[in-house]
Amino acid sequence: MTDRKFHPRQHHHPLPLDQRAVSIQDEYWSSYVNLIKNTVIPYQWEALNDRVPDAEPSYAIRNFRIAAGLEEGEFGGFVFQDTDLHKWLEAVGYSLGTTPDPDLERVADEAIDLLASAQHEDGYLNTYFAIAEPNKRWTNLTDCHEMYTAGHLIEAAVAYYRGTGKTKLLDVARKLADHIDDRFGIEPGKIRGYDGHQEIELALVKLYEVTGEEKYLNLAGFLIDERGRNPSFLHEEWEKRGRTTHWAPGVVQKDPPALEYLQAHKPVREQEVATGHAVRAVYMYTAMADLALHKGDRELLSACRRLWRNMVNKQMYVTGSIGSTHHGEAFTFDYDLPNDTNYSETCASIGLIFFARRMLQAEVKGEYGDVMERALYNTVTAGIAGDGKHYFYVNPMEVWPAASEGNPGKRHVKAVRQKWYGCACCPPNVARLLSSLGQYVYTSGADTLYAHLYIGSEAKLQLAGRKVRVRLDSELPWKGKANLTIAEADGSGAFTLAARVPSWSKQTSFSLNGEPVTPEIRDGYAYLSRDWREGDVLAIELNMEPQRIYAHPNLRASAGRVSLQRGPLVYCFEETDNVAPLASLSLPADAVLRAVHDDWRDGVVCLETEGWRVTAPESQADDLYGTARPRLEKQPLRAVPYTLWGNRQPGEMLVWIREGYNREV
Amino acid sequence: MTDRKFHPRQHHHPLPLDQRAVSIQDEYWSSYVNLIKNTVIPYQWEALNDRVPDAEPSYAIRNFRIAAGLEEGEFGGFVFQDTDLHKWLEAVGYSLGTTPDPDLERVADEAIDLLASAQHEDGYLNTYFAIAEPNKRWTNLTDCHEMYTAGHLIEAAVAYYRGTGKTKLLDVARKLADHIDDRFGIEPGKIRGYDGHQEIELALVKLYEVTGEEKYLNLAGFLIDERGRNPSFLHEEWEKRGRTTHWAPGVVQKDPPALEYLQAHKPVREQEVATGHAVRAVYMYTAMADLALHKGDRELLSACRRLWRNMVNKQMYVTGSIGSTHHGEAFTFDYDLPNDTNYSETCASIGLIFFARRMLQAEVKGEYGDVMERALYNTVTAGIAGDGKHYFYVNPMEVWPAASEGNPGKRHVKAVRQKWYGCACCPPNVARLLSSLGQYVYTSGADTLYAHLYIGSEAKLQLAGRKVRVRLDSELPWKGKANLTIAEADGSGAFTLAARVPSWSKQTSFSLNGEPVTPEIRDGYAYLSRDWREGDVLAIELNMEPQRIYAHPNLRASAGRVSLQRGPLVYCFEETDNVAPLASLSLPADAVLRAVHDDWRDGVVCLETEGWRVTAPESQADDLYGTARPRLEKQPLRAVPYTLWGNRQPGEMLVWIREGYNREV
Repeated sequence: MTDRKFHPRQHHHPLPLDQRAVSIQDEYWSSYVNLIKNTVIPYQWEALNDRVPDAEPSYAIRNFRIAAGLEEGEFGGFVFQDTDLHKWLEAVGYSLGTTPDPDLERVADEAIDLLASAQHEDGYLNTYFAIAEPNKRWTNLTDCHEMYTAGHLIEAAVAYYRGTGKTKLLDVARKLADHIDDRFGIEPGKIRGYDGHQEIELALVKLYEVTGEEKYLNLAGFLIDERGRNPSFLHEEWEKRGRTTHWAPGVVQKDPPALEYLQAHKPVREQEVATGHAVRAVYMYTAMADLALHKGDRELLSACRRLWRNMVNKQMYVTGSIGSTHHGEAFTFDYDLPNDTNYSETCASIGLIFFARRMLQAEVKGEYGDVMERALYNTVTAGIAGDGKHYFYVNPMEVWPAASEGNPGKRHVKAVRQKWYGCACCPPNVARLLSSLGQYVYTSGADTLYAHLYIGSEAKLQLAGRKVRVRLDSELPWKGKANLTIAEADGSGAFTLAARVPSWSKQTSFSLNGEPVTPEIRDGYAYLSRDWREGDVLAIELNMEPQRIYAHPNLRASAGRVSLQRGPLVYCFEETDNVAPLASLSLPADAVLRAVHDDWRDGVVCLETEGWRVTAPESQADDLYGTARPRLEKQPLRAVPYTLWGNRQPGEMLVWIREGYNREV
Repeated sequence: MTDRKFHPRQHHHPLPLDQRAVSIQDEYWSSYVNLIKNTVIPYQWEALNDRVPDAEPSYAIRNFRIAAGLEEGEFGGFVFQDTDLHKWLEAVGYSLGTTPDPDLERVADEAIDLLASAQHEDGYLNTYFAIAEPNKRWTNLTDCHEMYTAGHLIEAAVAYYRGTGKTKLLDVARKLADHIDDRFGIEPGKIRGYDGHQEIELALVKLYEVTGEEKYLNLAGFLIDERGRNPSFLHEEWEKRGRTTHWAPGVVQKDPPALEYLQAHKPVREQEVATGHAVRAVYMYTAMADLALHKGDRELLSACRRLWRNMVNKQMYVTGSIGSTHHGEAFTFDYDLPNDTNYSETCASIGLIFFARRMLQAEVKGEYGDVMERALYNTVTAGIAGDGKHYFYVNPMEVWPAASEGNPGKRHVKAVRQKWYGCACCPPNVARLLSSLGQYVYTSGADTLYAHLYIGSEAKLQLAGRKVRVRLDSELPWKGKANLTIAEADGSGAFTLAARVPSWSKQTSFSLNGEPVTPEIRDGYAYLSRDWREGDVLAIELNMEPQRIYAHPNLRASAGRVSLQRGPLVYCFEETDNVAPLASLSLPADAVLRAVHDDWRDGVVCLETEGWRVTAPESQADDLYGTARPRLEKQPLRAVPYTLWGNRQPGEMLVWIREGYNREV
């Protein structure tokens, strides 16, 4: 297998495996991967071509046809509409890498031909500016996602090249990146600016990794370090274009762009807390970690650690989601994690996974894997319905459907997954993540294979100079057994298998070929080095006792409440199992949680227990307030994996249940 | 005393007393009444004249001077800015009625002269349209508050006439009302329309009551019954003016005015639930009840009962406040009463008191008095700071100051009372209510005096043909003793004293001249009829045991929680007494609540008890989530009257505290 990677500086850090080298074969995850391949990718292609009945048109393909001179018409959709096609091509690239499909590849090649034919002589490529505002290129980076859009094209090109070996899209991407490199920089005559929406930075690192061209890495570094410089480029740009915004043409704005929202309020190296639009933030942190790795930039790595620490210890939901408010789809501040008005965008958790994977490359620590797993198993898959055609953008901890309808402050909290719609960031993002899952399961160093996620799969790689094929069999998330099997290993010599020991597993045991072993445990990973031979099996037994999770008392919204977790899965209570209002329910502190296998969805483990329900005392009748204590009635409780909520009858949902109502009263 | 009232139809219903006939003399309330008279009214006069340093100018007087041709300039402030002067004059009218003040009267008379000189020949009077849009009169009733502004002028005129006997402002009001009557109606050539903001309807009833002119009552009836007629006047008007709104000049709107927000989505008689902007709603219900009374309109009265029932049983906070969302300062839907994002505008509780007083005239039932008292003692007085110069518009059940700063969904929830500012509806509304408190303490029929509120006062009236002076001495809200004394009563013959038995008093006893009596209790009022003689004392002893208040289980936001009440006062926990985070606190179900007199503010009764605080277990350290159960520590708890919150160090505040954490854990 040709290695289509090139990592000139990063070689002393573990790397993800070649994207064709990992194939997912897992009872739980294969259904998601197949859903992406068999349903989502074809469905999204139809959407890109405006052929989905009753859905808003995407205009994406049509815009490219117009820009390429193949059709007449006006630009349609958002200013960043091209990214719908880019993200689709990226997912296709990943998918073709592991599962060849000549029909799909032909369709994608045609799309790439179309895309290439819309590229300008000078390398510029963006259908919005080609069609709608040809003279306005690079005049509104704040609002117009021009580099963001280019970034997604670059990511697609890298994935497609790595998946198929074809260079046409990669050439388009290089030409575009070269064009941007010509226009932006500190040199006289260049624009000392950066995009309002981070994305191109991490994409340029990928382009560097695949081409070895240092200028792409340096361009990424320039964009990262310019950000937040004072005086603000974004404010100067705003002044230059007459204080207008793309979103309200012609209207002179009172206030300049909010820099915190764009993580441009201070130099990124000085930023201490996660702030602003959550997706922008984690995309930026990802690029910062990439740059820290490639450049050995310890200052940048500290900034990453600091921002990670703030996010994870102060601003992350128990489901691995981020973004406490829909106002700007943003972080708010430490410990502000309301359960029923949060945003917790699916895309933001995807970006959090990107960031965690880079941090795992910088330093192999269980907490990065833990968060990656938490976000993946709970929020990302919650984003997509079983049919692959309905999505949550917002992933709340608590839903009262009547309030989603009737209280304007909760309108963003949907009780039912929505059809792919106009601003379709999340669906293609889910598709590109799940079709590249192998990139997150493993990384490897020269003589160590790290298994970060227990997702059944096969990986081919070189370890200590040996050609190795490793099979990971996993019964997660329902059972705690996983085996790492050396399916093939030529030659001889020691290498190391390092398996993450999830923090949720209160007791983890290992055996080698049936005999107990005690690997070295370091920073949440179990290391076992030996001269591994074909047929060797490292078995891992994880503890799957259901657990109660408590929030730090500063997290006011969940005080006096408890959430449930079993293995990597966070659980929730749904109205269909527990009868509304769910707020009436409580879980006694000493109630025993039973894991119960259920037929639903080919075998789901639910949690059952006995709880209590408060009901109004008779004396209260219909009165809103009364002085008689509510009655307590026994109530069987049943929790289901959060990630599967909203797949049955619509109704209330609750992650954090009240604990410890005094049953003696 | 000349009776400056005229009630041609309503005479078989109880009426409020002449506004000069009740003087407040109460240890608790006199300080508020004096604050209004000695501080608020003079301060507001300075504000109206743009003489308050560091405050946004009001422009109100200046606008009148420009409209009267005494000054050159542009209109300043909101389209309804005139009402600042009107509400001030109304408060002054009430104040002069009970406490003559020649200096104040002279200032007010001059303001009235100014106001009169700005009136047009045809009776029209509105400085916005006089100055800014002279040709746009009556073209945008939806947005421009034209009748609303006229309504406040009428209310001011009635109050000033009743308080001083002077007719100049009343003549201005009549001329304006006549002008409106000429322009609006079902007759050909008239506009079949109504104002976007209800207010004039209740004002026209007052004008009718004082003048006896039926046309004003009929005009009010027309405006009430036109409202919500289909096709919608407001939508037709919107079409006519080119789909624009006053609030975004020149911008063509996509959507027509939201009719539910304006209570114009269906005829008022058919409305079943309280909806839309809360102040508009209760002003409208007040006028509906007025009309039902004067016209003996039973259908309209049923609508009032229905809307009352919905508000009080489904949409009212325990503090007697309404409006669950700041989006449109509006009602949302049944049982949606979030504690930390509510609006609960001070003005809306004032409107609720207006409505309750009318319902008490329609039928003497304790629940109307209970709600009136709840809103007055808790929300209205919470609205004003001890200095009379700082106000809450929003009255939350729960405040975390950091969230008010850092979470955009809570920006409307202020942790500190604000200086009187631009859109100053609440401060002058508080002033006019508190300066007319006597109108809410009593009503009287031909031979019955009803005491609705236990506010120390003296009332002069005719009962059964006798000239009577009644003194009410009350130790509320701190102690449960009140005496109704016949201070004077000429002649002889039986009349009735009817005293409200508050629903919060679990046991109420009565004595007459020191001997226990058992009055007839009917619908929450105690009736005692006799040939009352000078010196007779009816003593009422109310039970002041602190009580726990529980919410109906459908009120999800307060499930598992309890609020505290003692007498009419709802209590809350403040950070300054209890240490943040308040969400960590819980109150055991069996904790004894102790009423403790405190020196603060010349004697406040606080509630003290022993509770618990959860703290993070050591193992959790700084982690956001952990599996170890939080530690419980004993914590003394101290609650203060809600209405006084935010008068010490700024900090967290909490009305609904968690109850019954299992202390054995």
